[in-house]
Amino acid sequence: MRMNWRYACNNCDFSRPGDQPIWRCPNCSGALHVEGLPAFRSPSSAAGLWRYSATLPIEAPVHGTILGEGGTPLVPVEIDDRLFHLKLDSLLPTGSFKDRGAAVLAGYLKQAGVRRIVVDSSGNAAAAMAAYAAACGLECTVFVPASASPGKLVQARAAGANVLPVEGSREDVTNAAQAAAAADPEADYASHNFHPVFVEGVKTWALEVWEQLDERSPDLVFTPCGGGSALVGAYRGFLAVESSMPRLIACQPAACAPVAKAWECDGEIGPFAQGDTIAEGTRIAMPSRPRQIMNAIRESNGWASVIDDDFLVETLRMLWGKGFSIEPTGALGVAAFRLANRAGKIGDEDSVVCHATGHGLKATPTIASLL
Amino acid sequence: MRMNWRYACNNCDFSRPGDQPIWRCPNCSGALHVEGLPAFRSPSSAAGLWRYSATLPIEAPVHGTILGEGGTPLVPVEIDDRLFHLKLDSLLPTGSFKDRGAAVLAGYLKQAGVRRIVVDSSGNAAAAMAAYAAACGLECTVFVPASASPGKLVQARAAGANVLPVEGSREDVTNAAQAAAAADPEADYASHNFHPVFVEGVKTWALEVWEQLDERSPDLVFTPCGGGSALVGAYRGFLAVESSMPRLIACQPAACAPVAKAWECDGEIGPFAQGDTIAEGTRIAMPSRPRQIMNAIRESNGWASVIDDDFLVETLRMLWGKGFSIEPTGALGVAAFRLANRAGKIGDEDSVVCHATGHGLKATPTIASLL
Repeated sequence: MRMNWRYACNNCDFSRPGDQPIWRCPNCSGALHVEGLPAFRSPSSAAGLWRYSATLPIEAPVHGTILGEGGTPLVPVEIDDRLFHLKLDSLLPTGSFKDRGAAVLAGYLKQAGVRRIVVDSSGNAAAAMAAYAAACGLECTVFVPASASPGKLVQARAAGANVLPVEGSREDVTNAAQAAAAADPEADYASHNFHPVFVEGVKTWALEVWEQLDERSPDLVFTPCGGGSALVGAYRGFLAVESSMPRLIACQPAACAPVAKAWECDGEIGPFAQGDTIAEGTRIAMPSRPRQIMNAIRESNGWASVIDDDFLVETLRMLWGKGFSIEPTGALGVAAFRLANRAGKIGDEDSVVCHATGHGLKATPTIASLL
Repeated sequence: MRMNWRYACNNCDFSRPGDQPIWRCPNCSGALHVEGLPAFRSPSSAAGLWRYSATLPIEAPVHGTILGEGGTPLVPVEIDDRLFHLKLDSLLPTGSFKDRGAAVLAGYLKQAGVRRIVVDSSGNAAAAMAAYAAACGLECTVFVPASASPGKLVQARAAGANVLPVEGSREDVTNAAQAAAAADPEADYASHNFHPVFVEGVKTWALEVWEQLDERSPDLVFTPCGGGSALVGAYRGFLAVESSMPRLIACQPAACAPVAKAWECDGEIGPFAQGDTIAEGTRIAMPSRPRQIMNAIRESNGWASVIDDDFLVETLRMLWGKGFSIEPTGALGVAAFRLANRAGKIGDEDSVVCHATGHGLKATPTIASLL
């Protein structure tokens, strides 16, 4: 147990100790971040992502990892005659990078006395939160769009989650989840899109990259960006090691690119009129932590990249043809790297890492349709 | 490149240097094993399973792992009030333990000058061999039963394998693959059921367990047994570290239990009249390396365990309910451990490892039908 850190708001001066869970600012409804974690010195001998627990909101589990979270491979790959490293978070326990956030958030909520969690997701976050809720002994309810594919819900149901379909828009699903959590004093809204403790778990992907590159940061990091936890997590991870900050590139599909639009207009993020894309995991019209996302891009001297589906499919075929099993959303980083390489934005000596965020086994029907 | 070891037959006195690939004995058609590998001293600093390349038929890839093979978590789990460790080979790159064998076999065949490989499988072995063939630059043809579910072939097809359905029995599929390989001088039959180099790759799961338990062998090891590579691999792995040999338990579904039948009758393995089971990965009526399997059980003072499907489903529900994503076959080891625990076959101080061989995402339709 370690809760001597604080929640702090990005928009106003709200701040509160970390021993009582809270998912957004009670004053202004803004996104929160975590402040006052101990400085990171070096990885411990613990297993998986708990090697970095010195800089996490909770301490490592006593007997090892919970479900095997963390410690994913960093693999050299050559595409378009250019070598880069691929961080295979597709190989996390439920098949996506969200396990990092779920492991730390579920463990934190359990230690803080929460009995039940409520989430809204039809995809990887539902699988991750349901699995870690089960592992930590929390009851879990998942609100999903009535239109969600049944196959995508099997993981959450197998982990014992109560899956409740909601008719209406994606916003209606979120509202239903928030209302259910608010109505139950022993429940908490464990949102991957809002909760700052989730981001603290996700940041371990950057810490692992740093350690795998012999305790150096790469020069450029390309990661898919929907709700922004992988991007903001990378920013916070590289900040924690106090190494040099890589340029962070937020990679979005053309059909849903609110971050890229804000970047191109040098403005702030607003709702995006989204279209169809195979990169389902990044179909988020309005991310919940807009300031943190833009701050990560700007402070790291990064940028936002837009990928159209045809180019994403071409990139996916390249990765599959090399034997990697990666879902469509998970290849946005590699696609954006290829665009940057073509545009001459990558120096000959630059060290590049792309984040593979989800397993191909997550998207068998979509992949079958593209073969 | 390291090929100064030899192929040796289990049945006759055939022996031949390892620099030319061969998959079974040309004299008596018996299974081969690998002889004369360097003694194992300690893991190297390489990534994944290549930490143990000193005792593998080929050396480590220069730039790291190929697809992220090896280094899977070993996680403490409590079931029926008894703690054990679960080795999550479900988190290997294509989602099954077969990646260990495929990585080493494909790498070896490439280095030996093979251009094309032929395999027969409708499941995890096809996915693993296709992925590593793609990664190593080998063409790959997969012969499958015409009845195989299309969903199970998506991984192999995505990796660029030429998937050819064969009408008839499972034996007809194997014969077609062997005939195709024999007819092509630049091709090799890269069989997970026959090839001894495949087993050498698989043995790294035991080496990792040994290292994860602070360079000690456990007392008991439960692993699913179909073709026997996980079991024989464990035996060869624990032999290589020259630590104490754990008791090795071959775990089979009641509907297809040729090894357990031989064990109970104190005889040799013969063809089994198989029935239906959800443990599809172990539906092998007559394994190709019968002597190696019985030798591993007998020399380790182990046994064979039979699990009926109802008990397997109960065990699966327990594992899923703790958040683990495991396919039905992959829970045979845990189910057999539970039976042994009930029967008083496990001492209070015994250290137990169960092998989770495949990911739940491999079997979404089956899991959905069981919820």
